Amino acid sequence: MTTASAEGARERLPRASVARLPAYLLALDGLWSEGTKLTSSHELAARSGVSPEQLRKDLSFLGSYGRRGVGYDVAQLRGHIGSVLGLEEPNRVVIVGVGHLGHALAAYGGFAERGFSIVGLVDDDPAVVGTTVAGLVVRPVAELADVVASGGATIGVIATPAAVAQQVADALAAAGVHGILTFAPQTLQTPDGVQVRAVDLASELQLLAFHGRHREHAKA
Amino acid sequence: MTTASAEGARERLPRASVARLPAYLLALDGLWSEGTKLTSSHELAARSGVSPEQLRKDLSFLGSYGRRGVGYDVAQLRGHIGSVLGLEEPNRVVIVGVGHLGHALAAYGGFAERGFSIVGLVDDDPAVVGTTVAGLVVRPVAELADVVASGGATIGVIATPAAVAQQVADALAAAGVHGILTFAPQTLQTPDGVQVRAVDLASELQLLAFHGRHREHAKA
Repeated sequence: MTTASAEGARERLPRASVARLPAYLLALDGLWSEGTKLTSSHELAARSGVSPEQLRKDLSFLGSYGRRGVGYDVAQLRGHIGSVLGLEEPNRVVIVGVGHLGHALAAYGGFAERGFSIVGLVDDDPAVVGTTVAGLVVRPVAELADVVASGGATIGVIATPAAVAQQVADALAAAGVHGILTFAPQTLQTPDGVQVRAVDLASELQLLAFHGRHREHAKA
Repeated sequence: MTTASAEGARERLPRASVARLPAYLLALDGLWSEGTKLTSSHELAARSGVSPEQLRKDLSFLGSYGRRGVGYDVAQLRGHIGSVLGLEEPNRVVIVGVGHLGHALAAYGGFAERGFSIVGLVDDDPAVVGTTVAGLVVRPVAELADVVASGGATIGVIATPAAVAQQVADALAAAGVHGILTFAPQTLQTPDGVQVRAVDLASELQLLAFHGRHREHAKA
């Protein structure tokens, strides 16, 4: 797998296929940790929560085809998907807001295993600034640009109250990150080239509520 | 808006349209809090991050059509979408795992505004059990079934380490919840009728990494 072909794959990939790659990678990680060297599209699809047809189609966009009667090479496919996603080297992340959520994110061991390194923590609360969380000293929000630059961060996580989320997004964009993950339930404006992904937990609960009600009515 | 028509809407709705309803509701909440009584499909679509065509199509599945030259009645549409999602009464939620993440979720004010009431907290750490978090006393995991039943909870949130997530999901399903929100990066097995939604934060970061790399290559 060369970088050139990873780039080519990135250009060909439909957005919906991209969105499923992390699930495939996670399933492959699981197989690998169990010592599985070869897997079938059925097994990988089942572990990823998609149909085998969908999986084969998505992987064909990457130029990865299973060998008939043999299947997919777990290590090779893992490397390939990681390369397409851009995970060959750890992506450096700064977390803004070190309340309970920021603390949970800073301390979460799963990021390192999956391609991310938390390089900086920032907060505006004098009681929090200067404390050490998950091995990092929390820096004041006024030093955000320096934390991003000196840490080489490309991704910022907004774990602040919603009221200041846009302001933090502006500061992160100005500091040069290209991606922002926000937990604030509002649309953030960012310059072109700064991608935002929002995790809105109340929306997730609302979709569970919908399915719950639907189920009750279906049973009635 | 009667319950019967909300039920009808639930049956007609494509899954992708359902997935966008929380964003429409959030945008309507914002308009309402700003004192806006009528809105256009363009405005509502812009705030929801979709095209006006998509918005009109989704709302037509609900039987909601804007009036030409007038637009959508914000209060009425809010009530309608809330009713379709099943938010007329607060949905009761139990959180399992009161580490930093569980604590952040328990203390998050945004759930109450958007149709959810946290009615119970459960943990297996003797140092945490018995403490009060966000006004609730943390109960031992052995009492989960009672916490769910006495609180009338229909949704469980798993904020535990991944190693025990399946075990917690089994216990929540046995206790009678119909929906589970999990933060553990693994596929959970649940009985039919118990819907699982997974928020995998490392996957979100991986998708940001993909777009960041893609942008670098596009610029080069």
